[in-house]
Amino acid sequence: MHKLGAEFMGTFWLVFAGCGSAVLAAKFGDTDLGIGFVGVALAFGLTVLTMAYAVGHISGGHFNPAVTLGLCAAGRFAWKEAPGYIVTQVVAAIAAAGVLFAIASGKQGFSASESGFATNGYGAHSPGGYSLVSALIVEIVLTAFFLFIILGSTDTRAPKGFAPIAIGLGLTLIHLVSIPVTNTSVNPARSIGPALFAGSVPLGQLWLFIVAPIIGAVIAGVVYTALLDRNPHPVSLQESNAG
Amino acid sequence: MHKLGAEFMGTFWLVFAGCGSAVLAAKFGDTDLGIGFVGVALAFGLTVLTMAYAVGHISGGHFNPAVTLGLCAAGRFAWKEAPGYIVTQVVAAIAAAGVLFAIASGKQGFSASESGFATNGYGAHSPGGYSLVSALIVEIVLTAFFLFIILGSTDTRAPKGFAPIAIGLGLTLIHLVSIPVTNTSVNPARSIGPALFAGSVPLGQLWLFIVAPIIGAVIAGVVYTALLDRNPHPVSLQESNAG
Amino acid sequence: MHKLGAEFMGTFWLVFAGCGSAVLAAKFGDTDLGIGFVGVALAFGLTVLTMAYAVGHISGGHFNPAVTLGLCAAGRFAWKEAPGYIVTQVVAAIAAAGVLFAIASGKQGFSASESGFATNGYGAHSPGGYSLVSALIVEIVLTAFFLFIILGSTDTRAPKGFAPIAIGLGLTLIHLVSIPVTNTSVNPARSIGPALFAGSVPLGQLWLFIVAPIIGAVIAGVVYTALLDRNPHPVSLQESNAG
Amino acid sequence: MHKLGAEFMGTFWLVFAGCGSAVLAAKFGDTDLGIGFVGVALAFGLTVLTMAYAVGHISGGHFNPAVTLGLCAAGRFAWKEAPGYIVTQVVAAIAAAGVLFAIASGKQGFSASESGFATNGYGAHSPGGYSLVSALIVEIVLTAFFLFIILGSTDTRAPKGFAPIAIGLGLTLIHLVSIPVTNTSVNPARSIGPALFAGSVPLGQLWLFIVAPIIGAVIAGVVYTALLDRNPHPVSLQESNAG
Repeated sequence: MHKLGAEFMGTFWLVFAGCGSAVLAAKFGDTDLGIGFVGVALAFGLTVLTMAYAVGHISGGHFNPAVTLGLCAAGRFAWKEAPGYIVTQVVAAIAAAGVLFAIASGKQGFSASESGFATNGYGAHSPGGYSLVSALIVEIVLTAFFLFIILGSTDTRAPKGFAPIAIGLGLTLIHLVSIPVTNTSVNPARSIGPALFAGSVPLGQLWLFIVAPIIGAVIAGVVYTALLDRNPHPVSLQESNAG
Repeated sequence: MHKLGAEFMGTFWLVFAGCGSAVLAAKFGDTDLGIGFVGVALAFGLTVLTMAYAVGHISGGHFNPAVTLGLCAAGRFAWKEAPGYIVTQVVAAIAAAGVLFAIASGKQGFSASESGFATNGYGAHSPGGYSLVSALIVEIVLTAFFLFIILGSTDTRAPKGFAPIAIGLGLTLIHLVSIPVTNTSVNPARSIGPALFAGSVPLGQLWLFIVAPIIGAVIAGVVYTALLDRNPHPVSLQESNAG
Repeated sequence: MHKLGAEFMGTFWLVFAGCGSAVLAAKFGDTDLGIGFVGVALAFGLTVLTMAYAVGHISGGHFNPAVTLGLCAAGRFAWKEAPGYIVTQVVAAIAAAGVLFAIASGKQGFSASESGFATNGYGAHSPGGYSLVSALIVEIVLTAFFLFIILGSTDTRAPKGFAPIAIGLGLTLIHLVSIPVTNTSVNPARSIGPALFAGSVPLGQLWLFIVAPIIGAVIAGVVYTALLDRNPHPVSLQESNAG
Repeated sequence: MHKLGAEFMGTFWLVFAGCGSAVLAAKFGDTDLGIGFVGVALAFGLTVLTMAYAVGHISGGHFNPAVTLGLCAAGRFAWKEAPGYIVTQVVAAIAAAGVLFAIASGKQGFSASESGFATNGYGAHSPGGYSLVSALIVEIVLTAFFLFIILGSTDTRAPKGFAPIAIGLGLTLIHLVSIPVTNTSVNPARSIGPALFAGSVPLGQLWLFIVAPIIGAVIAGVVYTALLDRNPHPVSLQESNAG
């Protein structure tokens, strides 16, 4: 129960503050004061950096169903614990999107479906007009490298205590590359939460942001273990942090 | 006395450099050279990161009455020490706003009440026009998560020495989300200081930026202790850093 | 083989995500939401920060032929291992540019040669119109200081575990200075990859971005060893991280 | 000699890359791609972060005559070593400004005196038109807090190895606040270097950027020692890093 509480808090924070920065602060009227894609990228990364330090020592700090499944594929997390983690992450993401919706609605003229509400998309709903194939490739490749960063920086050979910096700023980097392509998912829970509040279009494209991150994460888990891992005893983030 | 000196310096720096970045550098004439909300968010976070490393080992590095009270609620700080800390923080915030006022007045045409002077507000005085209810929710939720980050990253199970990075960049993240809603408080001292120099409007709304952060912080202290804490011996930031 | 796999992944990530941020996200239509040179600088630096934590403990985390040769010149890496590293880095850079080309092509109207595709240049092809001599000086000086940062922060006297932060953010700093001059190379592999996809102009200028970084790196390796090194036993990044 | 070599390299890097980011990249033609004051602030801070990790273990990483004198006032550095450090810092700053001048001159139409060449100023030469008194206050207060950060984060009670992050990002914060007021000095060497290449105006105002930082630094050294220091044995940055 401690672990599921930690995953709830971490995933709530990722969706609330990550998507919140996009919905509330990316643009600020006609001024150039808004935080833009750089600010949104920084915000998403800092949600993970802060919560990985705050509760990573309790749950391992996944906050993302694709991460949970990628760690299972790499032998770092027990398959039997995965369903509880994933259900908790999705529930937390929906709760976070709901609180964000309440706050955003306090501004006259707000409409979740018209503004997009930080949902992910491809083709006609890609922010920059990128195709379904581009979206698939970018989500698979970026999620795979996200898992490489997680698996490598929590490896017993890596310096202790720095993994949340590498992982959090890795998520910032992923957003710096791909917001124009898909609005950046690499996390099915993050895609599901806002989509429930923004009309039928994001719901119809949701499958890609569930399938592609999971494919990328599982490939990375298998590849890392086969090519780079020399650990006889795989470790979790908790054990890495405790070192 | 060492402790109160450290709290004075830290809170002075938070208000002087955080609000200073907003007042002096957010906009730069008609150019796009100004630092915008991203720069202001970074500045507020770095005031806490730098002073938590500089004097956190002396006072615990609260710099914020809501943090002091949240730590008391979590059993990490003695209630009897709280009044001295809080009075010191408020005095430091007022002093910092005064020095900033003197500097800003050295530019022709400066008016604290017309420019807003980095004060917090809701409704008609929200930067982006968000309602009182939105302001209440966002300040409560963000202060609660600020305390979760503080309590978790200084937990004995967290890696040693990294808490100031998590806490400081957590404050940056909070600003990335909420500057358009309330200009971001999560800190009653930070709200009180500039309000005294900017006319009657911010003074009339000050109650929200005292009440909401304290509610969020105390809730977080209770929740963290009940759900996530397994420490038999709670620790302060000083002890965490010394580890 | 572990080492070459790690170098492949790190260099792929550097070119894919670094150049990807420039190609996909620097500008975003007519809006001011794009990440600009600040975002691109941050992205390049974070590719190295993340991969140095993830696989630096395996290969040393060079990801750059100039770094490999500079470390050889400083006595920190074996000359006989250099050819395998360099070939791997160049192959990874070309593969990364190819995947990026596939993604970018999913937007109507994309042309690698017209957009520049994040290639490096001088004179008429310098982003800001800087001369060949300016380009030579800036690439030599910046690569030399990049090597000073690498050699110094992995020195046995430096604090353990922080080198990836210093090196990664050092690459961010280098980009903050020099994107307008040459689009910033300091890495022959990074220059070769995109140039193969962007027509004849960047290919004709490629020599400078191979020669200048190598000159700067080798000078730095020799100078650091002669003037600042007091280590009887030079160390690699792997050993430094393991400390 | 090792120590003076390290101070030369660090101060060269601070002026070359810090002022270089301002001269070469702050504005980029009529586009909004330039790095702006946020990018310049980040660049100055990263020069210190990177060199403090690279050579801080050799010389202590001052790179600034005001820092050297403030550390002397706090009893952390020997007065008799100060002249050698300060002369080296000023020579390095002039050399760096010279190399930057050569690079900048490779763009048609460049004029150091017309562009300002990253010099500091007040009154009519303040970027935002701030008075001499505002400039004096801001330079004294910011340099004092810069020293507080340095003295506190290298205190034996602070966590080991993190001081370069606190100090470097502290310099970023200082720039986020004060570029519009004075173009930010807090460092006499940084002010002297570019002023020699930019005509008579910055030379005539140079006294303030020598006097104010030194006053602030010495006050901070005395105050920190009197109020906050409980160390029987003061330490240098080298010893702190080595811990």
